[in-house]
Amino acid sequence: MGITLEQAQAAIKAAHQKALDMGVKMNIAVVDAGANLTAFARMDDAWLGSLDISIKKAKTARYFDMPTGEIGKLAQPGGPLYNIEHSNGGLISFPGGIPIMDSGNRVIGAIGVSGSTVEDDHAVAQAGVNAIQGQ
Amino acid sequence: MGITLEQAQAAIKAAHQKALDMGVKMNIAVVDAGANLTAFARMDDAWLGSLDISIKKAKTARYFDMPTGEIGKLAQPGGPLYNIEHSNGGLISFPGGIPIMDSGNRVIGAIGVSGSTVEDDHAVAQAGVNAIQGQ
Amino acid sequence: MGITLEQAQAAIKAAHQKALDMGVKMNIAVVDAGANLTAFARMDDAWLGSLDISIKKAKTARYFDMPTGEIGKLAQPGGPLYNIEHSNGGLISFPGGIPIMDSGNRVIGAIGVSGSTVEDDHAVAQAGVNAIQGQ
Amino acid sequence: MGITLEQAQAAIKAAHQKALDMGVKMNIAVVDAGANLTAFARMDDAWLGSLDISIKKAKTARYFDMPTGEIGKLAQPGGPLYNIEHSNGGLISFPGGIPIMDSGNRVIGAIGVSGSTVEDDHAVAQAGVNAIQGQ
Repeated sequence: MGITLEQAQAAIKAAHQKALDMGVKMNIAVVDAGANLTAFARMDDAWLGSLDISIKKAKTARYFDMPTGEIGKLAQPGGPLYNIEHSNGGLISFPGGIPIMDSGNRVIGAIGVSGSTVEDDHAVAQAGVNAIQGQ
Repeated sequence: MGITLEQAQAAIKAAHQKALDMGVKMNIAVVDAGANLTAFARMDDAWLGSLDISIKKAKTARYFDMPTGEIGKLAQPGGPLYNIEHSNGGLISFPGGIPIMDSGNRVIGAIGVSGSTVEDDHAVAQAGVNAIQGQ
Repeated sequence: MGITLEQAQAAIKAAHQKALDMGVKMNIAVVDAGANLTAFARMDDAWLGSLDISIKKAKTARYFDMPTGEIGKLAQPGGPLYNIEHSNGGLISFPGGIPIMDSGNRVIGAIGVSGSTVEDDHAVAQAGVNAIQGQ
Repeated sequence: MGITLEQAQAAIKAAHQKALDMGVKMNIAVVDAGANLTAFARMDDAWLGSLDISIKKAKTARYFDMPTGEIGKLAQPGGPLYNIEHSNGGLISFPGGIPIMDSGNRVIGAIGVSGSTVEDDHAVAQAGVNAIQGQ
């Protein structure tokens, strides 16, 4: 559904290379249009707790077709989606998850990255997206 | 812990190639010595239900350091480990999961494959193991 | 509730010593009369998958106030408690869990052991029980 | 993986003694480098709800290799890791969990304590850490 394994592995490879360039240790997950895990890589000695978070970020980004950080803005106390993280077996609503579009701007999957600051996580995820979207 | 990402990706690549050669569509998971997912690939159009099974096979093989099919023999009705599958958040005890050893015969991780018959699943998993163990 | 920490630690110590004598690597769990974990020890290099099983064995033995293997006899296909393992977040119904009684024959807790054959598991659990019941 | 049972039991013993000195009733959990429970003790009449919290604190400290209270600072509303607690089957991000290092400053496990104020919990956990790190 949507993204192919070949595309997903290309995203993983690009994100992995970006993480090496930045000197950070990441968990990197790619899900397809059905929010099913398609490819995954855990860098040596990356945080144990980031494994689950990277997968949840990818799923969250596809569940709502927006970067996870955007959902987080809406999910603050008093916000319209407060505590949405309780749904779907647990969401992650801080940055590091980004939808992946095809050339027709249709969502074909998403990538989730976890292992450093949320800024680093997002930057590595974006590198994965760019490898597919050709930006 | 144990297997490196480089080794895990080599196992995935070899298992993937074996699946292509056999004309089957597989989910392929590799866990490290701590039973943590290290690398994963889901071939296009592989069964959706096999995603979770492949990961559970890899974990099961590492949890008890034996091929999943061996556990299944002990877990039959009347057998000593009947219904062991209810532990650890769900085990899979039919073939397709195999521990991965280093040159010193120490378990460094495991591979789990699901998507076809259990014989096919096991054969593809073994191809992944062989890529690392150099057999 | 029921067993004290002092008693639970005595049971763990005796079971641990028995396991050392037998040359096996065990996970050993003791729960109180409320089926709450009271003491636990995981021997170095014991099977990862046995951690959860040892705790589930102890809980199962206290849930029904009988050795886990007795429940297993009733839980076979066609038996009166077939698939009871689906309850309570997962039961384990093969040997290795034993209730612990006080001098008035009242159940004060239970011990669960996992890491070898079910016969070994049961023998190590019995050593833990004996340390408290003074047999 | 990492911490030995002997070390874990030494940490439990020291933390238990500290709790007795302070007149508080604690649940004390030690996990290894793989975040697997290695030793546990529940003091008589300690809060029932603290059992799970103590284990989750130990796991959380190892998942991210930092004291749980540090994660909590980042997980406040508006913070970069807001609601991270929904990952990994439930995290605890207030004080009482501390990583345990070896002499080479490598994380070999973690301790989690729950049963009193978070300040007391942290103090008892620190006593457990000190017993191993020899401070």
